[in-house]
Amino acid sequence: MPRFFLTAPPEDGIARLTGEDARHITRSLRMKPDEEIVLCDARGADYTARILSVGEEVVAKILSARPTVSEPKAEITLYQATPKGDKAEWIIQKSVELGVTRIVPMLTERCIARPTAEAAAKKRVRYRRIAREAAGQSGRGIIPEIGSQCSFGEALAASAGTLRLFCYEKGGVPMRREMLSGAREISLFIGSEGGFSDAEANAAKEAGCRIITLGQRILRCETAPLAALSVLQFLLEQD
Amino acid sequence: MPRFFLTAPPEDGIARLTGEDARHITRSLRMKPDEEIVLCDARGADYTARILSVGEEVVAKILSARPTVSEPKAEITLYQATPKGDKAEWIIQKSVELGVTRIVPMLTERCIARPTAEAAAKKRVRYRRIAREAAGQSGRGIIPEIGSQCSFGEALAASAGTLRLFCYEKGGVPMRREMLSGAREISLFIGSEGGFSDAEANAAKEAGCRIITLGQRILRCETAPLAALSVLQFLLEQD
Repeated sequence: MPRFFLTAPPEDGIARLTGEDARHITRSLRMKPDEEIVLCDARGADYTARILSVGEEVVAKILSARPTVSEPKAEITLYQATPKGDKAEWIIQKSVELGVTRIVPMLTERCIARPTAEAAAKKRVRYRRIAREAAGQSGRGIIPEIGSQCSFGEALAASAGTLRLFCYEKGGVPMRREMLSGAREISLFIGSEGGFSDAEANAAKEAGCRIITLGQRILRCETAPLAALSVLQFLLEQD
Repeated sequence: MPRFFLTAPPEDGIARLTGEDARHITRSLRMKPDEEIVLCDARGADYTARILSVGEEVVAKILSARPTVSEPKAEITLYQATPKGDKAEWIIQKSVELGVTRIVPMLTERCIARPTAEAAAKKRVRYRRIAREAAGQSGRGIIPEIGSQCSFGEALAASAGTLRLFCYEKGGVPMRREMLSGAREISLFIGSEGGFSDAEANAAKEAGCRIITLGQRILRCETAPLAALSVLQFLLEQD
């Protein structure tokens, strides 16, 4: 069943969708009154609702509510060194499917793509739309945030106090369930095409990051976050 | 260091590359004599070699040999229901990075894209090139095979005798290390956009497949194989 995020809580059992979601329901999906959709309040509740009317505004009657069960046990912030081309867009889409809580574009020494603050702000708008769509499609209970572009140093500072996992192609330890035990906030650092510099790796060590490896093969910068998130979710979902 | 697969074993300590690899080294990378490359014989050995001459044929002198260490402990065959558009191409690229041994395109009830045998044979040539490139870049010790398109029934029959993991969005058990213990051949079944039909899931159960879930979120058909392979490799690489 199509799933959308509410922008305002239902009133008297009636939910209203406007903008892109209304257009999507009315024009793309061509849904009609009496068809059902799922609405998520992004605060832990999913609603099944019956469409009453479509158009610029879609009005739906709430039929039932239940808790959203798809949120991971820990908040995961992905600090992703900006990759070339449009890789960032699908890193965002896939990371949202794989349970990320927040994605923060990060500029590291070896980033080839170095968008200006202005360009980064424009991309952020697009990235937020991608995150919202992916969250709806993958049944997330929240819309993951897209942070504003920061430097590696700013990322290290911002992640202080969380469990910091620094993925380093020059070696580290594999992730372990014990490593995550009790962690409620996890920060995942992933490099760009050129990986991290030695200086960055040393700074990460000194800051107390765990230096981890994602296995014996060399992963592209767009594959590494998906592999890391897949394993993190697997470990977090174990009893 | 750039890495290529040998098409013939070195003779008297001299290796020769032709075709695409020679063009790539000479034109794209613009490498010169005395620069070093890594050559893999796809049989378990990696060689460091110094370029003697470039051009239509690249000649290189073997400096040292060592065993390739990047191959997983189990052979994993991915039976992937054919997705729409060009998703198959990057499923192949990413799966090779994540250690797959063999990828077999499979037609299931809900496949929207249904290439004819002729069209599938053409795609297979392209898929093999993508697999070869990804294997070189990710440091694989083999070039994963691309099987010829088969039906779901043929895939079930071909995978008999292996540990069969059937990823089903309507529920199953999470992967567990114990599940893999001792398995040397693993077959991974992933559906298309529409997932598997109930009939296919029942056939898989009757055939003795393990029905598994990839977590609480709904993954796209191109994300599911990457998540499954990431977790499989993680489990296989644990001591």
